[in-house]
Amino acid sequence: MSNSGNGRFVDGARLWESLMEMARIGATPAGGNNRQALTEEDRQGRELFRAWSETAGCQVQVDAIGNLFATRPGSDSAALPILIGSHLDTQPTGGRFDGVYGVLAGLEVVRSLNDLDIQTRSPLIVASWTNEEGARFPPAMMGSGVWAGEFDLAETYQTRDRSGQTVRDALEGIGALGASRAAPFPLKGAIELHIEQGPILEDTGNTIGIVTGVQGIRWYDLTLIGMPCHAGPTPMEGRRDPVQKLPDLLPRIFGLAAENAPWGRATIGDLISQPGSRNTVPESIQLSIDLRHPDQSVLDSMHARLRELVSELSGETVEIRLEEIWHSPAVAFDPGVLNAIQTAVEITGHKAMEMVSGAGHDSVYVSRVAPTAMIFIPCQDGLSHNEAEYASPEDISAGCNVLLNAVLSLDAH
Amino acid sequence: MSNSGNGRFVDGARLWESLMEMARIGATPAGGNNRQALTEEDRQGRELFRAWSETAGCQVQVDAIGNLFATRPGSDSAALPILIGSHLDTQPTGGRFDGVYGVLAGLEVVRSLNDLDIQTRSPLIVASWTNEEGARFPPAMMGSGVWAGEFDLAETYQTRDRSGQTVRDALEGIGALGASRAAPFPLKGAIELHIEQGPILEDTGNTIGIVTGVQGIRWYDLTLIGMPCHAGPTPMEGRRDPVQKLPDLLPRIFGLAAENAPWGRATIGDLISQPGSRNTVPESIQLSIDLRHPDQSVLDSMHARLRELVSELSGETVEIRLEEIWHSPAVAFDPGVLNAIQTAVEITGHKAMEMVSGAGHDSVYVSRVAPTAMIFIPCQDGLSHNEAEYASPEDISAGCNVLLNAVLSLDAH
Repeated sequence: MSNSGNGRFVDGARLWESLMEMARIGATPAGGNNRQALTEEDRQGRELFRAWSETAGCQVQVDAIGNLFATRPGSDSAALPILIGSHLDTQPTGGRFDGVYGVLAGLEVVRSLNDLDIQTRSPLIVASWTNEEGARFPPAMMGSGVWAGEFDLAETYQTRDRSGQTVRDALEGIGALGASRAAPFPLKGAIELHIEQGPILEDTGNTIGIVTGVQGIRWYDLTLIGMPCHAGPTPMEGRRDPVQKLPDLLPRIFGLAAENAPWGRATIGDLISQPGSRNTVPESIQLSIDLRHPDQSVLDSMHARLRELVSELSGETVEIRLEEIWHSPAVAFDPGVLNAIQTAVEITGHKAMEMVSGAGHDSVYVSRVAPTAMIFIPCQDGLSHNEAEYASPEDISAGCNVLLNAVLSLDAH
Repeated sequence: MSNSGNGRFVDGARLWESLMEMARIGATPAGGNNRQALTEEDRQGRELFRAWSETAGCQVQVDAIGNLFATRPGSDSAALPILIGSHLDTQPTGGRFDGVYGVLAGLEVVRSLNDLDIQTRSPLIVASWTNEEGARFPPAMMGSGVWAGEFDLAETYQTRDRSGQTVRDALEGIGALGASRAAPFPLKGAIELHIEQGPILEDTGNTIGIVTGVQGIRWYDLTLIGMPCHAGPTPMEGRRDPVQKLPDLLPRIFGLAAENAPWGRATIGDLISQPGSRNTVPESIQLSIDLRHPDQSVLDSMHARLRELVSELSGETVEIRLEEIWHSPAVAFDPGVLNAIQTAVEITGHKAMEMVSGAGHDSVYVSRVAPTAMIFIPCQDGLSHNEAEYASPEDISAGCNVLLNAVLSLDAH
């Protein structure tokens, strides 16, 4: 593993090996990972992380929403802890790096500090937040959201997956219902290292993204309601067919992104037809809509335009209903933590750029209660939420070196 | 119950009462029925029909695909049987009349002949065909199709529902795996009485439709294949998003019907997105397509045009695959049986018109091995495959009177 520049260095090979060992849990035939939150695979992933953390001398605590905190003691009893981490859960057809890299890089920082015999003034906490993906139990960033006080714990416990199981039952089922309160504790700073999940670093030839903020996100359920009828005898002109409304509706939804290029995003990830029978015009089609923009005022105008176009298109033939189910406002990260990352970039000598995250991350909620920032590394072709997701061992190592030096810089000031 | 014209009359009130009693099995809150094939509700419906048939003096046989045949003996041992019937299974959100009317009207013919003390020369067989709807186990018209030799029994047994259960296990599970062979036996004729499932009789003020044939039907699975990626960081212009292809594709599919108006039909009853995650561009969208036309040559040209437009639209960004999964050619019914229905219409004096069925029916397959025709009555607003499906007691009675007199006419010649 070659290293340019100065500063302290982690063991990149050991980190890569840990990533590949974790990737065996919930491995998919196409080379990705299916380790959805609070499943048996998630349980195995958590146990592996816990065992590694304890071997590295950390004490592991679990809170009431299943967040894991592995703590390495500091030398100064008055110093607030520094938190580093991300999440171990994946999408149903997810990759080997999204989230898990940030957790295991945190662990590698601890291991390297052990090797280097360095004790920081601040305690170090490596965090693994529960259910960042929200694929099985919406919403995303559940564990960090409950911890930061964004979501009510009792309500979150009652959230159900498609099979009807609640979050609380799933937590109990895998032994992840911890004893400690899911509530924020004072932190000196928090840093999350993550793959970019987009093509910008790769396209611009940068190794490190200094992430100054996160796009705002709004999630909706949109339902087109028609009238079911038999596919054969019902003349075409009398039909109230929600599918026939899609060609009018979809371009306008995607238009919300185009009108706010290049940073606007519109995604329809799920479509559900009811009753979903081959020879019946559907009664309804439900679409999920995900709108994003880094500028909150632009995101708010996209929101207003979506509501407008729904009322323009909704009619007697096909009624359209729109329900906003989640809103994560745009975030600006902490200048002090960003300074520590900037210092680490200068020490290590990696080519870096400032950027905004297009994806939501646990750091969005953590940033509401603690000084927070993020570090990105490139991922191949910008692919993520995909079994083919890939980051090179060199970039994996580079990102972790920046993390280590950022932690040391934060600890020193 | 008022009756115009002459001929023999059924007990319309008794028939209505039987329909309403059957509708209690699998009743839905919205006033419809969910009695899908080979479910517990289907079992209860079958048992009720069997009990009623035996009380009416019939002997009930079940064949290897679960078709029920209730036989009333004839006086002439050389005369071939006359078969009347339809199906008892429903759509997931189906109505109280589709199919069940034809079965219970057959039973009412038997009961009325008992009351009138008339013994026909031909034995009468009231049939209830298994799984006409195909909603749980595709394809539709399964029981009549196996019986007529259209589908292979061993293959059909292996067909699975969404939960993975096979037809054979489901048949066994509800005690509907009969001992007799599922194979055609010689018939003098077969008549199926059914609600129209369209608005034509109502719009033209007719009480009876003399159904001279059935539209041809072709069923397809069409799959749009893109590339999954994260909803946030992935720029819009780099996406291979199958949902963004729908506005190009859908109008062309519905155009196949419009270009062949007024008889062409195109229906997309089901849409399934994979992996169906809110913050991931889907890897694929699968659509069911149902194309219909009463003229086989026009249907074939619609088929050819669909294949063309799929190859025109399929590209590197989003690939489109088309698989034809079922084809039911257009059918012309038997002139002799149609004559008997025409005679019955004249005797009873109901206002009638000739028409073509837009829906597939068990009679399509029965007509391949026996002289067959159908009778339609109006249903309110043309609604069917809908919990609000409704036919008036007057029309229910009128259709059954035509059926009774058509049976007697067929029996006399």
